[in-house]
Amino acid sequence: MITQRLAEAAKSTHNYFIHINEKAAEEVEMLKRIGRCGKLCGVLLVVKDNIEVAGMPITNGAPYMQRMAEKTAPVVSTFLAEGAVVLGKTNMHELGLGVTNVNPHFGPTRNPHDPDYITGGSSGGSAGAVAAGFADLGIGTDTGGSVRIPAALCGVVGYKPPRDKISMEGIMPLAPTLDHVGFITKTVKDMINILTAVRLIHRVEPPKKFRFAILMGLAENSRHVEKAFWKAVNVLEAIGGSRDDLFLNGYRYSAARSAILLSEAAAEYYHLLRGVGDLMGRDVATLLTTGVALPAVAYITAQKVRRELTDFFGVVFKKYDVVVSPTTAIEAVPIEEVDHLAVRQQLLAYTELFNLTGHPAISIPAPTSGLPVGLQIAARDEEMLMAVAKAYEDEL
Amino acid sequence: MITQRLAEAAKSTHNYFIHINEKAAEEVEMLKRIGRCGKLCGVLLVVKDNIEVAGMPITNGAPYMQRMAEKTAPVVSTFLAEGAVVLGKTNMHELGLGVTNVNPHFGPTRNPHDPDYITGGSSGGSAGAVAAGFADLGIGTDTGGSVRIPAALCGVVGYKPPRDKISMEGIMPLAPTLDHVGFITKTVKDMINILTAVRLIHRVEPPKKFRFAILMGLAENSRHVEKAFWKAVNVLEAIGGSRDDLFLNGYRYSAARSAILLSEAAAEYYHLLRGVGDLMGRDVATLLTTGVALPAVAYITAQKVRRELTDFFGVVFKKYDVVVSPTTAIEAVPIEEVDHLAVRQQLLAYTELFNLTGHPAISIPAPTSGLPVGLQIAARDEEMLMAVAKAYEDEL
Repeated sequence: MITQRLAEAAKSTHNYFIHINEKAAEEVEMLKRIGRCGKLCGVLLVVKDNIEVAGMPITNGAPYMQRMAEKTAPVVSTFLAEGAVVLGKTNMHELGLGVTNVNPHFGPTRNPHDPDYITGGSSGGSAGAVAAGFADLGIGTDTGGSVRIPAALCGVVGYKPPRDKISMEGIMPLAPTLDHVGFITKTVKDMINILTAVRLIHRVEPPKKFRFAILMGLAENSRHVEKAFWKAVNVLEAIGGSRDDLFLNGYRYSAARSAILLSEAAAEYYHLLRGVGDLMGRDVATLLTTGVALPAVAYITAQKVRRELTDFFGVVFKKYDVVVSPTTAIEAVPIEEVDHLAVRQQLLAYTELFNLTGHPAISIPAPTSGLPVGLQIAARDEEMLMAVAKAYEDEL
Repeated sequence: MITQRLAEAAKSTHNYFIHINEKAAEEVEMLKRIGRCGKLCGVLLVVKDNIEVAGMPITNGAPYMQRMAEKTAPVVSTFLAEGAVVLGKTNMHELGLGVTNVNPHFGPTRNPHDPDYITGGSSGGSAGAVAAGFADLGIGTDTGGSVRIPAALCGVVGYKPPRDKISMEGIMPLAPTLDHVGFITKTVKDMINILTAVRLIHRVEPPKKFRFAILMGLAENSRHVEKAFWKAVNVLEAIGGSRDDLFLNGYRYSAARSAILLSEAAAEYYHLLRGVGDLMGRDVATLLTTGVALPAVAYITAQKVRRELTDFFGVVFKKYDVVVSPTTAIEAVPIEEVDHLAVRQQLLAYTELFNLTGHPAISIPAPTSGLPVGLQIAARDEEMLMAVAKAYEDEL
């Protein structure tokens, strides 16, 4: 079974992998033989290539940064300790600094629903590999939506736990005050099973009644997204949700998130502009250059706006159990037509809020035909979030 | 007694006060009459004019910002609750953005030891008023040394508690990640008595033996400072201290502190440059303009250097009970000869470290004749710090 998935992964022309672990099947056999195969025995992981796995190369989506990893990031070890094995390191947006996953070095990751379309990113390789059935769990990072966005566009489940819950050790930084680890699975049920196996979440009880608010004013949804989203809202009502609307000044928070992201990313990587700037994708070089030019006053003011938003959601989550929105305002776009900077904001508008506030948020598939659409659910409490997501999935 | 001190304060030509509370004596009588005069009955406070006291004007050292305060900052209320009364609001460096206290609007605060010399700042009015005997307790703020520096230059005791211990509510910000409240008294004994009365510190036991490290490599001390400092070191050895040297790369931390201070101060006050820039002292306008021009990358990098320094002192304080240095590398300079930008770094070099790390630090007089010199003691633990300071004072 593992051997077969390995072979298929190696043959795939979707560019999900930067490195494949040829020994994955062997490793599971070894673990079984020595009696160390735990609750996740044989579960296949794919790990975004900005996360260290000892003995495998790591690139951060940029061949000019390639090196061998000597340690394994603790978040990966958590799963390995229960018998999971790493199938491979996955393709990503260069440096994680983008949400389309059109990587000029390792090729664009291709949507499993239509190879001419983007997967979204920057954890697009992990999302694609899970959606295509190569792996059971994808590990990625989410700085503005980088786990939830490709999960939405590929029709799988992407979960960003609360900020500071999971160690960022062994993970390449992008914007340290916004960076989160995230997980990708095919279903909410898989997500709950895998995360409870490693005690990252606890008992999930089905909710009886719950209050939810719909995020408004952040973006203009495509027709396709709009249709799927309202079907999803109907499902939430069917399982006991009572609904309300919540208007936000999207521009204000989006500008703040951009200022923080670009400033911090520039602080991490501006030195690359001089040495290897010519090798970089133009979109990434442009964003880093923009970050270098941002004044400290803009950054500090953005962090104030962020605290304001976080306080606001503190109040919101006293009134509502969960807050919902489409995960992205648009579905996947064709790779050949992608304009990184234009598409960027339509993909980020709903997800970035919860990188600013640090609240847990999940993307689960909304009812649709054609290209997948994601429903985003955010909450103060992880178990409440999972409970609503699970009840929704069961109802579908 | 209070009436007399009030009259003398009103007559003083040292520019310590921006506002005097004519009703101070009356207030004490009232408190006594209604039986609300507690452990600090009749203790006279002077409050730096960037801290709100209800019913009194507040200027932040800048007449163009003057307004009436409607609330009293919690840190002030702490002392009022035990029967202390506010004698007045004290002069400060304009916006707190400087350490000389040569205020072009309210006059330079004049050193009680020689009126032609600076008090240092930015809490210079509070330090001068305590040194001159007008008040028992001065409340100030300390963003780079603004309580410890004027305490050193005026020959009194200035204490900066650990960061985040005391609420900054009701206090005008300068650089929010560096801002601390601080206290000024004549002696360490007074400091301990007053702060234990309001439970800000607890039982202080005399230390038996302790290890101390001398900060090296941060500045070139004047001869006068050097002489007094080594006498102070002898006293520390006489009371059971065993000594070691600790070398630091001063420039690195000083540059980081400046980048953080100027960026954050600009974020707070850059809007004033357009409206009232012409009314500002030239030194303050120059620093704000510099802050506006700083890139976010410099700010973020400075905050990284700061975390590095904080980690370093985490290790240092495992090895040493306290760390000592002169409070300032130079004694007070003549008001007429002051060049704000040149003097600045010689005054800040030793104090600014503990605004970066957040550790508690105190300035106490070093043995000298002529202009006062301060000995700075920093520690991880407030009670250890006070114990060493008290034993030192008793030995003198």
